[in-house]
Amino acid sequence: MLKRQFDACLIRPGDIPASRDDLEVVGAFNPGAVATGNGNEVALLVRVAERPREQRAGYTPLPRWNVDAGEVVVDWVADDELEVVDPRIMQQKRDGLWRLTFTSHIRVVRSPDGRSIGAIDDTLFVPQEMYEEFGVEDPRITRIGGTFYFTYVAVSRHGAATALASTTDFRTFQRHGLIFCPENKDVVLFPEQINGEYVAIHRPNPSSPFNMPEMWLARSPDLVNWGRHEHFLGGAGSWDTGRIGAGTPPIRTPAGWLAIYHGNQKETDPGVVGAYAAGALLMDLENPAKIIRRSPEPVLTVTAEHERVGFVPNVVFPTGIVERGDSLLVYCGAADSATGVVELSCQELLVTTSGTEPGRYI
Amino acid sequence: MLKRQFDACLIRPGDIPASRDDLEVVGAFNPGAVATGNGNEVALLVRVAERPREQRAGYTPLPRWNVDAGEVVVDWVADDELEVVDPRIMQQKRDGLWRLTFTSHIRVVRSPDGRSIGAIDDTLFVPQEMYEEFGVEDPRITRIGGTFYFTYVAVSRHGAATALASTTDFRTFQRHGLIFCPENKDVVLFPEQINGEYVAIHRPNPSSPFNMPEMWLARSPDLVNWGRHEHFLGGAGSWDTGRIGAGTPPIRTPAGWLAIYHGNQKETDPGVVGAYAAGALLMDLENPAKIIRRSPEPVLTVTAEHERVGFVPNVVFPTGIVERGDSLLVYCGAADSATGVVELSCQELLVTTSGTEPGRYI
Repeated sequence: MLKRQFDACLIRPGDIPASRDDLEVVGAFNPGAVATGNGNEVALLVRVAERPREQRAGYTPLPRWNVDAGEVVVDWVADDELEVVDPRIMQQKRDGLWRLTFTSHIRVVRSPDGRSIGAIDDTLFVPQEMYEEFGVEDPRITRIGGTFYFTYVAVSRHGAATALASTTDFRTFQRHGLIFCPENKDVVLFPEQINGEYVAIHRPNPSSPFNMPEMWLARSPDLVNWGRHEHFLGGAGSWDTGRIGAGTPPIRTPAGWLAIYHGNQKETDPGVVGAYAAGALLMDLENPAKIIRRSPEPVLTVTAEHERVGFVPNVVFPTGIVERGDSLLVYCGAADSATGVVELSCQELLVTTSGTEPGRYI
Repeated sequence: MLKRQFDACLIRPGDIPASRDDLEVVGAFNPGAVATGNGNEVALLVRVAERPREQRAGYTPLPRWNVDAGEVVVDWVADDELEVVDPRIMQQKRDGLWRLTFTSHIRVVRSPDGRSIGAIDDTLFVPQEMYEEFGVEDPRITRIGGTFYFTYVAVSRHGAATALASTTDFRTFQRHGLIFCPENKDVVLFPEQINGEYVAIHRPNPSSPFNMPEMWLARSPDLVNWGRHEHFLGGAGSWDTGRIGAGTPPIRTPAGWLAIYHGNQKETDPGVVGAYAAGALLMDLENPAKIIRRSPEPVLTVTAEHERVGFVPNVVFPTGIVERGDSLLVYCGAADSATGVVELSCQELLVTTSGTEPGRYI
């Protein structure tokens, strides 16, 4: 585990005004983050999860985005009509459909220096398409030229797919449709073309028990259409046996493309989510499918209180990265509730020793 | 169900010479089919499933393609190290990996008239990539300009993905990589660009129990890179509650794009595969995402003996279609063993009445 040179909880749910009086914010987490080029400013796209404030004995309120009405509506479902899957998910007995107990939108938050919060903008990126009826989640931002592209998870009755949008000002947004069909999450874009092609890391989640947790790579001429899928990285078999997926978008270093990814341990108890941690990856500059090194141990584990306690305890989930001289500011979702930032030394991340053994994290 | 104007079992496993002396052909099924433009000739790409001939008491032979060696190798696994999933699939207890009891390649078969078999070519399309270690399966051919493109399922420890290849002569083939990542099968291409874009129907199979069986649509500038995924069609809730997926590539009719798709009924008994049947779809010529009509009942159900009896009983699985005047020759996999052809009237398919009720199949 690397030394955290700086560590702060940037945003808690109570910091974000609800989008409507009858909803309360239960999470402000899993942020995309990018340097805007305006001094030290960092723009964050924060996933805001809301649930109805009202409670009714014997009923569970299940919010969803009504595409026609253009707003959140709430279905009140009798508790005995629902099966609890985990704290976030209920299954409707009548049709087997999974429902979320909250709905997410994306909010623009500005940081003047990357280490503290400034304005919480009024700008909301809310669901619009039928593929977003259960929310838009977990944006990851990559600046390509003068445009900020972000992938996000579009959740609906059809599953969790990944969509692409872009902005130049974080006030207006352009949608580019679903780029990876269900089930696919944790998509990050490389910041430039490599050998004339855009590259993404994605995380398909197939139904077949053939599959172990693994990340894939895809290539594109235009960011909208993707092909030449190839297997990229599976779990190393220790801390990342349950899930594995891209975390921060890759950044270019002289040694290779550097990225931080997440994993968690497989839990055999149903409904129990294993602790999340993060590892580091170094990829070949010319062919990122070629992994030069990966950290033998996590570089981030659950440490701070806001990572230990929350809606889903014991989650540190890196989703954004900003370079600051020799340091990296890594933005993380914490316990599916809050947004944290951790400062790491880029040099240590690349070459630091691991414990008492001489070696390299990555 | 439509009247079969002609109905034949074209190819049985015994008709195909094994690719090697120590293997036996157990299936010659799920064929791609296309008119070559050479008179009435139809070219078929037939999936050939083989298994080791040798038997050893207490052991199961599990074949796989060894990419480095460029040939099939056989792993002999003790029976008590395996869990039987269904007749086709074993699960290795030590690592949870699913294995197939056979391996598939693709074979070129020529029909002089579409209704009988001529030459069984020596041309084999065999696995080559790591994504094909457990076989290449279920080709679907679409002629676009002078090139025959075919999608096929690439099966490996990473799941079942869909790849694209092409040929102009059915002797040499060009691979275009994986176009849809795991888990995705039953991909068919439309035969021309629609509003400047290629269109495919695909069938993601996500892990999330959000999902019901459903087909999706994607669009592409170049057949290799795909985006703008959209939900296309789910099960109608009767004969197609278990699985649903594209069957034949769509053909243009004045009334719209016509395609035959497959479905089966959900079986609650583990290891039991429900009977397959096929329905018909008519899609808008300008926007195939818009479904004009779908058949209220199957247009093909299991009828012939070769559809009833085989490796997986009770499967009729349409995979190819050729227009012959007012008729359609529909090529089908039968019971995961044989290849059949059925002749249907295009007019009846479009407008026939259903049972005693006035109506339209599609």
